[in-house]
This record gives sequence, C-alpha cells and structure tokens, in this order.
Amino acid sequence: MLILGGARSGKSRFGQSRIEAFTGQLCYIATAQAFDSEMAQRIALHRADRGPRWATVEAPLDLPDAIMASAAQVDAILVDCLTLWLSNLMLAERNVAQASAQLAQAVQDCPVPLALVANEVGLGIVPDNALARRFRDEAGRLNQSIAQIAGEVAFLAAGLPLMLKG
Amino acid sequence: MLILGGARSGKSRFGQSRIEAFTGQLCYIATAQAFDSEMAQRIALHRADRGPRWATVEAPLDLPDAIMASAAQVDAILVDCLTLWLSNLMLAERNVAQASAQLAQAVQDCPVPLALVANEVGLGIVPDNALARRFRDEAGRLNQSIAQIAGEVAFLAAGLPLMLKG
Amino acid sequence: MLILGGARSGKSRFGQSRIEAFTGQLCYIATAQAFDSEMAQRIALHRADRGPRWATVEAPLDLPDAIMASAAQVDAILVDCLTLWLSNLMLAERNVAQASAQLAQAVQDCPVPLALVANEVGLGIVPDNALARRFRDEAGRLNQSIAQIAGEVAFLAAGLPLMLKG
Repeated sequence: MLILGGARSGKSRFGQSRIEAFTGQLCYIATAQAFDSEMAQRIALHRADRGPRWATVEAPLDLPDAIMASAAQVDAILVDCLTLWLSNLMLAERNVAQASAQLAQAVQDCPVPLALVANEVGLGIVPDNALARRFRDEAGRLNQSIAQIAGEVAFLAAGLPLMLKG
Repeated sequence: MLILGGARSGKSRFGQSRIEAFTGQLCYIATAQAFDSEMAQRIALHRADRGPRWATVEAPLDLPDAIMASAAQVDAILVDCLTLWLSNLMLAERNVAQASAQLAQAVQDCPVPLALVANEVGLGIVPDNALARRFRDEAGRLNQSIAQIAGEVAFLAAGLPLMLKG
Repeated sequence: MLILGGARSGKSRFGQSRIEAFTGQLCYIATAQAFDSEMAQRIALHRADRGPRWATVEAPLDLPDAIMASAAQVDAILVDCLTLWLSNLMLAERNVAQASAQLAQAVQDCPVPLALVANEVGLGIVPDNALARRFRDEAGRLNQSIAQIAGEVAFLAAGLPLMLKG
C-alpha cells in the first residue's frame, strides 16, 4: 500500500493505523536523519506516538535491504517516508534510478503486509532552483513507479483518505 | 462543513453556494486583513460577489467568539478562511494550540449550519525558511482537527468538489 | 476533457492514452518553448515517447487558433499544457482574460475529441513574489473556466486518476 499526501496530512498516522490492524510484531522503517534539532524533535515525537508492538529500524539510504531484512523477522512493515529517502539518496549522490528499481523489486518481493508513506510535492509553483525541480521530478517518478505495483493507493488530506486504487 | 483546496480552486464560491442553500439571514466571517492594495482589492471583489442576504463580520484573530456571536443572530455562517486566521495568529504571536482548541469547541457548539474554508498548503516542495515550515505544519494540524469534527469535508480543485467525508 | 495534476503526476501520459483510444490521426499541440537545455531535453523525451500516429504542432501563444486549425485535419487532439501556455502569455504580456475567453470558445467549438492537460499549482505555501502569486491566481481561474465546460475532469496523483467530473 502506498500512502500519499502533503505535509501534516495525517499520512504517517493513517499508515500506522493500517499496519496496526495486523497481528504480531510490527516494524517501523524510518528514513529520517536528524541533521538539526527541528528534525530530532519530529523523530522523537513520532517514536513516542507509536506503542510497544513496534520495532524501529533506521534506513536513510539502504531501504530495499532494510525492507527485505525486516520482512524476515516481523509480521507487517511501515516505511516512513519515501520522499526523505529520495532526498537522502540525492544528497549522498547515489544513483536514483538504480535505487528506485531496487526498491520496486523489494516491494514486489516483500512477503508481509507493507505500507509506504510518501509526500506529494508537485502541486505548488515551479521551484526557482534546478535541484528542487529535479527533486520534484524524481519524487513524482518514484511515486508513480510504486503506485503502479501497489495493491492500494490512498491520497490523504486533512487526515482523511481518498482511494486512488484498491 | 470543511472546504479545503488550493489558491483559486473555487473554495469560497463553493462555500458560499452551500450556505446560500439555507433560508434566512447569512453571515460571512472574514479573517482577511487588508495590509496592502493587492489584499484590499481581493476583499472588495469577494464582498461585491456576495448578495444582500449576507452580513459581513471581520474576525482576524477572535474567530471562535465571532462564530458564537454570529450564531445567535443569523441562520447560517461561512468562515473564510482558517488559513489566513492561522497566519494572523502567528503574526500576532498568539498561542496557536489554545486558539485552535477554542475554535474546535466553537465549531462543535455552533447551533446553526457552519461552513469553514481552508487552504491546503502542504503539497509543494518543503519551504526554505523555518517560519513557512512551521506555518505549513500548523495549517495541516488545524485542518486535521476541524476535519475530525466536521460532518462533511470537501477537497476542491478547478471549482469541483471531491468529498473526503460525508 | 481536462486533466489536472502536479509535476510528474502522469498527466501527459494519461492524456496520451485517452486520446490514443480514438482511431485515425492524432495531434499533439505543445505549448512548451525550449529556452534552455533542461526544457529541450524534456520536449525531446516527450516526443520520443509518442508513436507515429501523432502529428506535433507547436503553439506557445496562439493556442485557440491551433486547436481550430488542427481540428479540421485530425481525429483527436491533446493539448499539453495550459499552464505553460498561461506562463508564455504572461511573459509576452498578452491579455490573459481575452486569451482565456478565446480558449474557452475554441474548446466549446472543437468538433473532435480534445483533452487538455493543466498543472494544479495552488497547493503549496503562498509564493514570496507578486508575479508568482498572480500566475497562481490566473492558473486557478483558467483551470476553473475550462473545468466548467469540460465533459470530464480528472485529477492525477502518482499516475492514477480521481474523477472530479464525468
């Protein structure tokens, strides 16, 4: 399942509640890296929000491997979020097309229920700088490639889902 | 009812037509403040657009009180818009969490039909400056809290509504 | 048919597949102008993506005329995209209201199936500069005016359509 939405649209909470509907051990794969105190605060808030059934794995770059490794140990997985992962890949100058293909493969191979949260970032004015434009294009492409293989796709606004698929 | 959408998505017009479906006296609660001529022009255009059944109340900051006061006098209310109200609160350095809680209470207590217009601002690239990021987060939180208690939630694009709830 | 969406949301591809469902000769009316290599690359990629059934017409400014001229020669038309056309009009200091009215007339008069692609640009934070704010307002107005006369309106996210109308 792919969960799209804007900032503070309730994506993570929705993904969390969907994954908590499964029994057993759950894994939260975080792609966030705390570069500053604003970020560290967000991460801590999100972590406090989740209950004891959740294990947390950090995978700022090697997300496909983290999904496959977690899938062998838990009963359902939430990835939060693909857009930060893309941002990390670009900052680290990794090959985005290759990493996206590996992610698509991991999503298809994952034997347990998997929800992936992603930001929709292409609905504002065209950004001034070329890097932001490239990021926006790559994010759109990544969302499309995962949406194509996902069984369900939801678009969140104000905490409420619109089903795009499934 | 909560009416979400982007700039020039037809939110205000949609809210107006929904409230005009009720009989009796109607109240338009404006949160806009005319800081410059661009803003003054928008306000004048919107006012000219509405008919004689509408009273207009300005409530840049004390929106919860304005809703309760108007509810005692008219038959239906349109608030336009929550996002400008939030912006005014932040500029005036008011306590946003407290004001949001008071608004949620006024929405729940309001004895007459009430439509609230709000902007969805979180679907573009992450803004450069911290204040814009905080504003975007607060706007998302506010939209979620009102959406949770609203009977109906619509997302407007190109003047057309998608129902998220109700 | 009007096809709305963000950057890299799959709008063009969706429009293309809808128009390819018709038999006969097809026309792609491009409003893009290659000002730099980034743009030229995008145009070339899109062109390579389309098959031999497609003729291509460039109409950065005189879109209404191009639609009527193409309609006399082909069996279905895709316009990609209205938002770039608006941007071109504003850069050339044309009368946007007049051009929009001419476009609406051409859309209504067009005797063959016609799909128009447009960007939704109003769902981010309010832009810093007045020109970007005016562009965002004009784009919203243009989308509303075409949505009003279109038989179908779709909102695309991650390559998937939500029907707003039809």
